[in-house]
Amino acid sequence: MYNESRGRSETRFPDTSHTMPQPTPPESLSWQGDRLGSLKLIDQTLLPTELKIIDCQNADTVWEAIKMLRVRGAPAIGIAAAYGLCIGLKTLPTNADLDAFRTRLDEVAEYLASSRPTAVNLFWALNRMKAKAESLYHTGNVPAIWDALFAEAQAIHDEDRHICRAIGRFGQEFIKDGSTWLTHCNAGGLATADFGTALAVFFTAAESGKTIHVYADETRPLLQGARLTTWELMQRGIQVTLICDSMAAWVMRQGKIDGVVVGADRIAANGDTANKIGTYGVAVSAKAHGIPFYVAAPVSTFDLTLTSGSEIPIEERSAEEICEGFGKRTAPEGVRVYNPAFDVTPSELISGIITECGIISPVNRENVERMVKTLH
Amino acid sequence: MYNESRGRSETRFPDTSHTMPQPTPPESLSWQGDRLGSLKLIDQTLLPTELKIIDCQNADTVWEAIKMLRVRGAPAIGIAAAYGLCIGLKTLPTNADLDAFRTRLDEVAEYLASSRPTAVNLFWALNRMKAKAESLYHTGNVPAIWDALFAEAQAIHDEDRHICRAIGRFGQEFIKDGSTWLTHCNAGGLATADFGTALAVFFTAAESGKTIHVYADETRPLLQGARLTTWELMQRGIQVTLICDSMAAWVMRQGKIDGVVVGADRIAANGDTANKIGTYGVAVSAKAHGIPFYVAAPVSTFDLTLTSGSEIPIEERSAEEICEGFGKRTAPEGVRVYNPAFDVTPSELISGIITECGIISPVNRENVERMVKTLH
Repeated sequence: MYNESRGRSETRFPDTSHTMPQPTPPESLSWQGDRLGSLKLIDQTLLPTELKIIDCQNADTVWEAIKMLRVRGAPAIGIAAAYGLCIGLKTLPTNADLDAFRTRLDEVAEYLASSRPTAVNLFWALNRMKAKAESLYHTGNVPAIWDALFAEAQAIHDEDRHICRAIGRFGQEFIKDGSTWLTHCNAGGLATADFGTALAVFFTAAESGKTIHVYADETRPLLQGARLTTWELMQRGIQVTLICDSMAAWVMRQGKIDGVVVGADRIAANGDTANKIGTYGVAVSAKAHGIPFYVAAPVSTFDLTLTSGSEIPIEERSAEEICEGFGKRTAPEGVRVYNPAFDVTPSELISGIITECGIISPVNRENVERMVKTLH
Repeated sequence: MYNESRGRSETRFPDTSHTMPQPTPPESLSWQGDRLGSLKLIDQTLLPTELKIIDCQNADTVWEAIKMLRVRGAPAIGIAAAYGLCIGLKTLPTNADLDAFRTRLDEVAEYLASSRPTAVNLFWALNRMKAKAESLYHTGNVPAIWDALFAEAQAIHDEDRHICRAIGRFGQEFIKDGSTWLTHCNAGGLATADFGTALAVFFTAAESGKTIHVYADETRPLLQGARLTTWELMQRGIQVTLICDSMAAWVMRQGKIDGVVVGADRIAANGDTANKIGTYGVAVSAKAHGIPFYVAAPVSTFDLTLTSGSEIPIEERSAEEICEGFGKRTAPEGVRVYNPAFDVTPSELISGIITECGIISPVNRENVERMVKTLH
């Protein structure tokens, strides 16, 4: 059937004047007020059974939220830390001199960095904020430096928002009205400033008026799909069906799935993609059933120093995640457990990689390099 | 490397004089004493954290054990019901006449049948017991009928034990010393009189002196793999590693798996096999990695009235199994859930079906019919 709105070239990219009204879910993070304002965060540890917004009025609250995984996801942690630095400066008197400002800034940055010492984006954001301040110390103008720092935090926030939206715009081109998709884990808005990566594709498709249905793998052991992906899709009024990971192949066999979109943790120069454990199995099944399999990720996810996926180290996590995941022991004491956090999907199983700069397809070394170099 | 014991043809089939000493785990069911004795059952609801043996001295205890899934698995339920009938007769006076005996027998059979009205094997076993009694009522010899009934219960028990052992003997031929296997769900001794079906293959291989390593899928949503398969393998001293279902494909990709053995719930005339949800995905991954995939099941599992797997009805179970599996809500209230209990693996993905009468391979209509007709 001919679909008029999709046939008009001027509406192929979202045009806000023609988009569908969507439910507006609470944002994972938002800032209220000027540079002396506060950061509001969704406490993700309480989802999906409780939606609680934490109002961070001081650096301690931000530190605790990062430490206790109330805010999670690399981009979201970076944004929270950048704003956290601004919040930490609020204890300064309004007439603070440069020395007092510098001392307090270094103190707060060091404190926030101690909240989650393995989170790369935490350090990246704090270092970017400190570099901004240092570039302006020569002016001696404390109020101006303070304003510039707050603007930098907002820029970090905005940049991530724009990346999410661009991924969504490019990716939604693959989504036909009335189609059904599958995703694994949670590459959604909770981990980012806005729409997320894989879920941005679905959100943008829905926003542009397409009706879609998404199957969400629960994603053992930590159940990010069951807890977070279903919640995010329901919040935006998108039809979602929760399944166990072991059901994905069977759902494909029944002809229920038109395509798969997942996120990525790290992508090698040849396009091999590390993502949450279970992604590889979904890709193998998609291939066996002739179903397209897409990865959605910002260009910053590519690591061109890695020739292929075999160079990506795979973190192994504790046995308790599997044996005591539901608060109750579900396996014999002393059982040997293998719990890799990630797996690597080889590029030949990936139909395309959706970035904020466009689509990489076919996925190979040449096309990856071309895309990554476009940005730099 | 030449392995002497495996090269000697006389030890290719288990020879008890040469088998390795194995740990002897408690039996899922065992009878103690003569026809006035009692049935001992493992309370499977407490595994793997507690091993409790229930001593069934009256029909109420047997009824409750079946009702509450303390005993589970089609063969085990049938055996428990057959013995349960003998236990129910213990309330008769030793000089009971034929009328009293018949009345009590019918009463106990009806009572036990009410414990789990959907369990086919429960009715099969009770009907077989009643048919045995009815064939002897003309003799009027109550003590002899009573003895014959007890012997029939023991025969049901023994037949299942022999089926398990025969499956194990045929299947262990595929298991090389030092090899690593994967299984899904629990097709073990807990569900049967003895060795189980898929696990019988591993137990027999170990008994014949082979060192093996088994990866056990946890098997969401009900975790039979995590709770029961790991426990059974550990009880028999076989090295087992627990993984989430979503990790199976990745473990195969890493070259860790030499083959897969699973059980079956129902097999169609062309060899298409219904088994616990997730089995199909494992078969797809095995095929993609060139790994042999075997089904182990008694000939009674075949249903030649079903032309192919598409005729096998798939039971859908409650959303709570996925959303509140272990006493804690892990998905949003009101989320739509798809929870099929089984999936169907098409015969072309199955390398062989291991039965108590031999191996079906290649798996096709002709070979299935030949094997099933051998038995009848």
